[in-house]
Amino acid sequence: MPTLDPGIGEKFSRRTKRAINHDGSFNVRRRGGPHRHDPYQWLTRMNWWPFIGLVVVFFSVLNVVFAFVYLALGLESLPGVMAPRGWWQDFLSALFFSIQTFTSVGYGHVYPATNGSGFVSSMEALVGVLTFALATGLLYGRFSRPTARIHFSRTAIISRRANGLPCLQFRIANQRSNILIDLQARVLLKTVHPVTTDQTYAFLPLERDSLSFFPLSWTLVHDITPESPLYELQAEDYERLDVEIIIQLKGYDDTFAQDVHARNSYTHDEIEWHRRFLRAYEVDDDGIAVVDLDLLHETLPLNEE
Amino acid sequence: MPTLDPGIGEKFSRRTKRAINHDGSFNVRRRGGPHRHDPYQWLTRMNWWPFIGLVVVFFSVLNVVFAFVYLALGLESLPGVMAPRGWWQDFLSALFFSIQTFTSVGYGHVYPATNGSGFVSSMEALVGVLTFALATGLLYGRFSRPTARIHFSRTAIISRRANGLPCLQFRIANQRSNILIDLQARVLLKTVHPVTTDQTYAFLPLERDSLSFFPLSWTLVHDITPESPLYELQAEDYERLDVEIIIQLKGYDDTFAQDVHARNSYTHDEIEWHRRFLRAYEVDDDGIAVVDLDLLHETLPLNEE
Amino acid sequence: MPTLDPGIGEKFSRRTKRAINHDGSFNVRRRGGPHRHDPYQWLTRMNWWPFIGLVVVFFSVLNVVFAFVYLALGLESLPGVMAPRGWWQDFLSALFFSIQTFTSVGYGHVYPATNGSGFVSSMEALVGVLTFALATGLLYGRFSRPTARIHFSRTAIISRRANGLPCLQFRIANQRSNILIDLQARVLLKTVHPVTTDQTYAFLPLERDSLSFFPLSWTLVHDITPESPLYELQAEDYERLDVEIIIQLKGYDDTFAQDVHARNSYTHDEIEWHRRFLRAYEVDDDGIAVVDLDLLHETLPLNEE
Amino acid sequence: MPTLDPGIGEKFSRRTKRAINHDGSFNVRRRGGPHRHDPYQWLTRMNWWPFIGLVVVFFSVLNVVFAFVYLALGLESLPGVMAPRGWWQDFLSALFFSIQTFTSVGYGHVYPATNGSGFVSSMEALVGVLTFALATGLLYGRFSRPTARIHFSRTAIISRRANGLPCLQFRIANQRSNILIDLQARVLLKTVHPVTTDQTYAFLPLERDSLSFFPLSWTLVHDITPESPLYELQAEDYERLDVEIIIQLKGYDDTFAQDVHARNSYTHDEIEWHRRFLRAYEVDDDGIAVVDLDLLHETLPLNEE
Repeated sequence: MPTLDPGIGEKFSRRTKRAINHDGSFNVRRRGGPHRHDPYQWLTRMNWWPFIGLVVVFFSVLNVVFAFVYLALGLESLPGVMAPRGWWQDFLSALFFSIQTFTSVGYGHVYPATNGSGFVSSMEALVGVLTFALATGLLYGRFSRPTARIHFSRTAIISRRANGLPCLQFRIANQRSNILIDLQARVLLKTVHPVTTDQTYAFLPLERDSLSFFPLSWTLVHDITPESPLYELQAEDYERLDVEIIIQLKGYDDTFAQDVHARNSYTHDEIEWHRRFLRAYEVDDDGIAVVDLDLLHETLPLNEE
Repeated sequence: MPTLDPGIGEKFSRRTKRAINHDGSFNVRRRGGPHRHDPYQWLTRMNWWPFIGLVVVFFSVLNVVFAFVYLALGLESLPGVMAPRGWWQDFLSALFFSIQTFTSVGYGHVYPATNGSGFVSSMEALVGVLTFALATGLLYGRFSRPTARIHFSRTAIISRRANGLPCLQFRIANQRSNILIDLQARVLLKTVHPVTTDQTYAFLPLERDSLSFFPLSWTLVHDITPESPLYELQAEDYERLDVEIIIQLKGYDDTFAQDVHARNSYTHDEIEWHRRFLRAYEVDDDGIAVVDLDLLHETLPLNEE
Repeated sequence: MPTLDPGIGEKFSRRTKRAINHDGSFNVRRRGGPHRHDPYQWLTRMNWWPFIGLVVVFFSVLNVVFAFVYLALGLESLPGVMAPRGWWQDFLSALFFSIQTFTSVGYGHVYPATNGSGFVSSMEALVGVLTFALATGLLYGRFSRPTARIHFSRTAIISRRANGLPCLQFRIANQRSNILIDLQARVLLKTVHPVTTDQTYAFLPLERDSLSFFPLSWTLVHDITPESPLYELQAEDYERLDVEIIIQLKGYDDTFAQDVHARNSYTHDEIEWHRRFLRAYEVDDDGIAVVDLDLLHETLPLNEE
Repeated sequence: MPTLDPGIGEKFSRRTKRAINHDGSFNVRRRGGPHRHDPYQWLTRMNWWPFIGLVVVFFSVLNVVFAFVYLALGLESLPGVMAPRGWWQDFLSALFFSIQTFTSVGYGHVYPATNGSGFVSSMEALVGVLTFALATGLLYGRFSRPTARIHFSRTAIISRRANGLPCLQFRIANQRSNILIDLQARVLLKTVHPVTTDQTYAFLPLERDSLSFFPLSWTLVHDITPESPLYELQAEDYERLDVEIIIQLKGYDDTFAQDVHARNSYTHDEIEWHRRFLRAYEVDDDGIAVVDLDLLHETLPLNEE
C-alpha cells in the first residue's frame, strides 16, 4: 500500500505547511549533496513569457559579444559596412553582420575579408545553427509535454446520501476540450498528531475510483462509513488534526497519446459542511450535454432545493 | 468498475444525442470557467489541408506586415531594389526582401543599408528561424501522433450461436498495414429510462476481450445469457430504451511504439437482427491470409448459406 | 485469455504459410476498403539506403522542376548566371540557383531581378525550409523508434530435464549492448487440423516467463507435462499438425526509455529433437560474464558432454 | 517470479564481479554474432563534453574535406577569394567558403562560378542542412531522454527495529527538484555458492515497496524474519556467500512525462552492521520540509543518540 510516509522511524520535528499546493507542487526543499539542476526541465516547465524573454536575452547577449569581437578585429576586416562611421555606427554594423551570420541570412553586402573575421564568422555560423537546432527541440518539448488541465472545485464538501450516510465529496472538470480515458483517482488523508506532530497518512476509498471516459464533470465521493478514518470526526477535529485531503489523478490523454497526471489537496479550512453540489451540466436543444465550469464550485445547503 | 456515469445524484434533464459519434468524438460541450484552448492540440489534430492553408496564410500575413514596415522605413534603406519603381513595385520588392530574410536565404542583391532596416531585418531573421523551429516540432507532432485506424462494421448484429444462444456481434479490421499487439476491447451498454430520462451504463462482457496480435479482422461477441442486460430485449425495447453500444479499443502499435486507442458506438437503429457476418478473408494461392475490408460490413440472414 | 484466433465461427479454407516470419512480420494482406497508407510509417520503417536514395531523388526532382520554371521565366530574370550560355549551361545555372534557394544558402551572385523570379524563388525558399523541417522530424523519428534487436536461436529443441521430463527450449540474446528490463515472454502453439485445416491456438506456459534484467542470454523452457498440448506428440505429429511455436517478447529499453517488442516463430522443421544447448557464456579473467552470440545456436546431442 | 538467473541448467565457471555497478551498468560483455552497434544510442548516452567535441571534429573534418575538393577544382572557380594568395591562404579561403555553404550562410562575396564548384557546393549545402536536421534530433534526444537521478546512501545497514527485529535498510533521495510518482522498488539478493560458484537470486520483500509521491528521502526496509534468506546470517557469512543486494527502482517522472528507472547494488563490504540512519530532513521556519542530501549517508551506532 503506497503512502506518503517518508520512511521508517522518522518523525517531523514540528508542523509543516500543507503537503501539496493547489498548483500540484510540494512544500519540500533540497539542500546539500550533488543536487542536479536540469536545464531541460527548467526550460520546458517555465512559463511562456519568461521563456520568450530568455530567448531574446540569450540572442541579444550572444550577438553583442560577437559584435565586440568583430570590432576588436577591426571593421576593415568586414568590407561593406555603412558610412559615415563612428563608434556607435561601427558597433551597430558589427552587430547587424553578427545577426546575419548567426541566423545564417548572410546577405553578403558585408562579408568577412580576412582570416580573422572568416574564422570568427565561421564559428558564429556553427553556433547559430546549433542554437536553433536546440531551440527546435526545446519548443517541441514545451508544446508536447502532456499536462492535464483538471479544474478542481474550490472546496470539498461534507454531504449526506439519500440514506443518511455522510460522505466527503469534491468535483473535477476538464478545462480542455480533449477527452481523458481511463481516469483514475486516489485520495489520501493526512493528519498531524496534535501533540507529537507526527504525520499519518491513510487511504480514503472512493465509491468509484475510475471512469472509462472523462468528457464531463465528475463528483468523487468517499462514504464516511464506520471503517472510514473520518468516521464521527467533527469540523473542530479536522482543524485539530490539521486534516489535508490529498488527491492524485491519472488518465490517458488522447491528444498527447500519453498518460497525464494531476494532483491537488484540500486543507481543513477548504472543506464546507452540510452542503451539496449544484448540478454543473445540462442538455441543450440539440441533445448535447453542456458542462458549465463556472458552476463547478457552486454548493447549496443540504436542505435547500 | 469504471463507468461513464458522470457521478453521484446527477441526472440529465432530457434525452441526449448519442454519447459517441462514429469518429470517436463526444457530444459534449464546455461553457464558462478558465477553459484552456491549447494551440498545440488544435494544430496537431486539424486536417492536413486546413493546416497547410494556415501555414501559407501565416507566412503571407507575416511577410506582408514586414514588407509594410520596410516601406514605412523607405526603400532608400534597401539598396538594390528593382527599377522602375512605383507603389506596387516597391511593395513587391519589400515583400521579396522580407521573404528572403524570413527564410534566411538572404541573396544580398537587396540589403539593409540603414540602422532602421538593419534592426528590422535582424528581428525578422530571428522570428523566421524560430518560426521554422516551431514548424519543425509541429510537423513532427502531427506525423508522430499515434492513431489507430480501426475500421468498424457499419452495423452490429444480433446473431445466434450453433447452440441457439443469441449474441451481439460486431466486426473490426485494421485499415493500416501495421500490426496491433495486445488489442483489448471493452463494451458498454447505455440505456435511457423512457420516463425519467436517467442514463444507465452497464458492461457487456465479451466472449473474448483481447487478442495477442491483430493482423486480420476480429469479430467481437457478447453472449446474451440470462446475466446479460440485453437478455430477452426485443428490437422495440432497444428503441424504447434508446440503446447505445459503446466500444473502447486499446492496443500497442508497433510502428508508433505507443498505445493507440479507438472508440465507436452503435445506436439501436444501427443494429441488424437475425443476421450473421460473411467471412471477410480467404487464403490465397501463396498460403497468405487476405482480409477484404469491403466485405467487413456484409451480413447474411441467419438461415441463408 | 488473448489468442490469435481471428474470431468466432470463421475457418480458413486451406493451409496457410507460417503465421509469423523470422523478421517478425505477418503473412497477411489487406484488400479493398479505405485502406490507409501512412507515409510516416513507411518512411520511418524503410531501410537506410532506400531512405537516403529517396531523399536524394526528392531533392533532385524538386530542384529540376524549379530549374525548368526559372528557364521558362527566362534567365534574364536571374542576372549573374554564367557565360557562355547555351541550353545545358542555362539549365545548370538555373538548377544551381534553385538549389541555393532551396537550401537557403542564397549566395546572391545570381538573384531574382523580376517579379516572376522573385515570387517563384520566394515560394521555393518556403518549400525548402518546410522540407527540411519535415526531414528533421523524419530523421528523429527513424532514430528514436524503439526496436528490440533480440537474437533468437536458429532452432528450438526438445530436450530433457535432469528428472527425465521432456521440455521445449529456445534461446535468446540481446544484440545490442543496452539492458532490457522486465523482459516478458509469451509462447503460443499454433496447430492446423490435418483434415478441416482449422487453426487452433494454445498457450504454452513457461517455467519462467519474465526476467528482471536481460543482460545475458536467456533460455526459455516449456515443460511438456501431461497438461501441455505437446504431451506425447512425436516429431511426425508436429509435421502432421503443422506445428508453429509463436513467441512474443516485451521489455523496457533503458536507452529508448520505452517498451520494445519482438516476435518470432519456429515451425516444425525448425525444431531439433533430443538436443541440449551449449553454454553460450563464460566468465573472463576480470570476473566479467561474456556472452558469445555465435554459440547461441549451438546444440549437442542429449547424452554427449 | 522474475529473476536474474540467466536460465536453466547453466552455471558460471568461476566467481564474477558484482552484477551491477554503482552507475547502474552491468558487468557483462558480448562477443561474436551480428552485434548491432546503435549510433543513436551511443550519441544520446555519451557525456556532453565528448559529444560537443565530436560535433566540432565532425564539422571540422567535413569542411576540410570540402575545402580540399574546392582546391582541387581550382580557386578560379570561386571568384572573390582573398588576395594575396598562396597555398595556406587558398586553403583558408576554400575552407571559409565551405563553412559558409555548409551552414547555409552564403554571404556570396565568394561564389561558385563554374559547373564543378556549382555542383559541389550544391551537394555540400544539402549535406549541411541534413546534418543540422540530424543534430536537431540528436540534441532533442539527449535532452528529452528521461533519467532518474536517484541518490543512494553509500552503504546499506543492518539495523534493529524497536521490537528487536533485525532489518536491512538503505536510503534514497531525489537529486532533482522534480517529483517522482508511484515510485516502486524491488530488491534482489544474489549469493554465490562458496564451492560450486553457482549464483542464486532471491527476492527480499520490503516493508513497503512503493510510494505515491517521492518528494523527500525514503528509507527502504527489509525485515530479517525467519522467512528471509538473510535470517541469522552473520557478517562473515555475507562475505563467504559474496552477498550482493541488487535494487531496481521505477517511477513516473512528472517532467519527462515518462517512467524512469534506476538501479544500484550493495556488496557485502558496503553493508554496515548495527547502525541506524541519521534523520536527513527537518522542518524550516516556513513549515517546509527540507531534505539534506549530505546527511543521506550518515549513520550512527544503534545505541547512540
